Amino acid sequence: MSYEIATIPGDGIGPEVVEATLPLFEEVAESHGVEVEFTEYDWGSDRYLDEGAMMPDDALDRLEKSDAILLGAVGHPEVPDHVTLHGLLLPIRKEFNQQVCERPSILFEGVESPLAGYEGGDVDFVVFRENTEGEYSDVGGREHVGFDHEIAIQTSVFTRQGTEAILRAAFEAAQEREGHLTSITKSNAQAYSMVFWDELVEEVREDYPDVEVESLLVDAASMDFIRRPEEFDVVVASNLFGDILTDIGAIVTGSMGLAPSGNVNRSGEYPSMFEPVHGSAPDITGEGVANPIATVLSGAMLFENVGEEGVSEDLWEVVREVLADDSAPTPPDLGGSAGTEEMVDALSERL
Amino acid sequence: MSYEIATIPGDGIGPEVVEATLPLFEEVAESHGVEVEFTEYDWGSDRYLDEGAMMPDDALDRLEKSDAILLGAVGHPEVPDHVTLHGLLLPIRKEFNQQVCERPSILFEGVESPLAGYEGGDVDFVVFRENTEGEYSDVGGREHVGFDHEIAIQTSVFTRQGTEAILRAAFEAAQEREGHLTSITKSNAQAYSMVFWDELVEEVREDYPDVEVESLLVDAASMDFIRRPEEFDVVVASNLFGDILTDIGAIVTGSMGLAPSGNVNRSGEYPSMFEPVHGSAPDITGEGVANPIATVLSGAMLFENVGEEGVSEDLWEVVREVLADDSAPTPPDLGGSAGTEEMVDALSERL
Ligand SMILES: CC(C)[C@H](C(=O)O)[C@@H](O)C(=O)O
Ligand SMILES: CC(C)[C@H](C(=O)O)[C@@H](O)C(=O)O
Repeated sequence: MSYEIATIPGDGIGPEVVEATLPLFEEVAESHGVEVEFTEYDWGSDRYLDEGAMMPDDALDRLEKSDAILLGAVGHPEVPDHVTLHGLLLPIRKEFNQQVCERPSILFEGVESPLAGYEGGDVDFVVFRENTEGEYSDVGGREHVGFDHEIAIQTSVFTRQGTEAILRAAFEAAQEREGHLTSITKSNAQAYSMVFWDELVEEVREDYPDVEVESLLVDAASMDFIRRPEEFDVVVASNLFGDILTDIGAIVTGSMGLAPSGNVNRSGEYPSMFEPVHGSAPDITGEGVANPIATVLSGAMLFENVGEEGVSEDLWEVVREVLADDSAPTPPDLGGSAGTEEMVDALSERL
Repeated sequence: MSYEIATIPGDGIGPEVVEATLPLFEEVAESHGVEVEFTEYDWGSDRYLDEGAMMPDDALDRLEKSDAILLGAVGHPEVPDHVTLHGLLLPIRKEFNQQVCERPSILFEGVESPLAGYEGGDVDFVVFRENTEGEYSDVGGREHVGFDHEIAIQTSVFTRQGTEAILRAAFEAAQEREGHLTSITKSNAQAYSMVFWDELVEEVREDYPDVEVESLLVDAASMDFIRRPEEFDVVVASNLFGDILTDIGAIVTGSMGLAPSGNVNRSGEYPSMFEPVHGSAPDITGEGVANPIATVLSGAMLFENVGEEGVSEDLWEVVREVLADDSAPTPPDLGGSAGTEEMVDALSERL
């Protein structure tokens, strides 16, 4: 088999982690008789500062031909956030109908949690986050600007189609895992969107009678990710709630440097995009110390998505081994001093 | 001086913690020559189950005559959340224009944090949460119910008046504390409400040049409350973001059993309401083990609000002393076994 993978290294540490990990992906793929061809797109904030756009006009057409996309990071101190995001990340998620954002939170053996009393192996859950609508809908406006009676409105749009898509993805994952699903809501305060969400959960669960469903308010869930993260299996949440909860999940499982994610188009009509949850980290850019593991695991999710489970499993396995091994190099975000290349070498050695 | 305090013990452990703490409030007030008269309103879910309404029709008229309100908790396993909330808590916050919700997060000496490496005394910040609009606005609807193209919309309304009120309250608090304010936003994804919020922060800060302002995305803030809670001083957030962040704040500072809150009407035209952040806790109701400290501290905030700083300070002080004292009784949520009455006695002894 042979795959065309589009890479968008992007900003800050994005290019560092993507460039360092591509050879590892090739190596593992080759060992499974799988060929990968990477096409790099140097889009991002530098392009914006030079040419006034994060991506060219035909960007999505070009990406569409690939089997999957690997993104490094976007975000630049000199470019406003809404430009970097609305100019690249959010249009790809939206135009490629990547409705399902999948983010595992695993406390690996050998990794310390900021939570007292937790040890590697204690936490392993996955959040399914709705990825193209909800609280991120581009609907709203301002009126009476500058006057005392000025207002701003921001409207969340939840479609049955979009909500069902994320719920079904989560239910299916729960069936393959421990059979436990936690649905995040705030229906006590948001009587339209979240009551709709709750009703769809009740409808959709009929098709998955073997899955046990728990409902949790987003504020309680934020506490429980800290208080009892070991009890979660699959969590399903709206765009905003998923955004917040996956960052909490990344921190309680040790570091943003380990958290991968997939933006998945369920129909296969468009490519899916995989990216580390961490940002462009301008403070450490250029120092060669960025932890490449979140990108390696995003690659593992990518290979699973295109159907190469073997490649995927090997990538997960070498990460597990390196983190568990006391004598292996440790990146700065986990208290060590190993640079990006040294970490990739350590992973590669274990193949 | 003499004050009329309305009490609404409410549901679950609400009546237990309110009844246990009133004598303590009287005792401390008396020692300052302050008289308090409590009027108890037995509103809540039991009333709803009997009579079909959480409160009588003239509830707000009756409450309006008081100098302040002390609420225990609302929430009942047999009553839907939207009934308990829209039938009591949210109308009081809204009709009495309690725009400012103030929630301190303090890791007291003698209290263990779930965060490794943190000790009593390390964390002390306060969140100012907008309390009457934003993401909790009752604006939205459903269309095409049951069809494939069904949608639900939920609209957040941010007014200049409401946003300025919470910002000014937070800036004033920052001036009285360490002079540092963190504004929570999500302007990278919510281009109407949150960009408006950010612009008002820029406008309002002109009036508080001595306050240093930092802007933080809500997802990053959720991580930072876990990663570096010691660095926050005053945090200002919208209704929903404040809801989520104050629950995280309560957990990282040890327990929901210690977290007080105030719903403040800034103009003084209506009474303000004070309540523990914890809920009605049906699982431990009737066992006499609920921690009364969150209610005691809510009372401390109440007395400060009506102008009785001396009473307020004494209440804070006895809580600090009891928590710091190894030989004092400890409630179950902090790992001990002292019941509600025993805790109140321990506080009272230290007066
Ligand atoms: C950068 C931002 C728009 C994005 C989001 O909120 O989706 C990020 O926080 C994420 O979680 O991928
Ligand atoms: C009960 C609920 C509506 C309420 C809120 O979200 O405001 C509670 O969580 C709180 O924080 O006071």
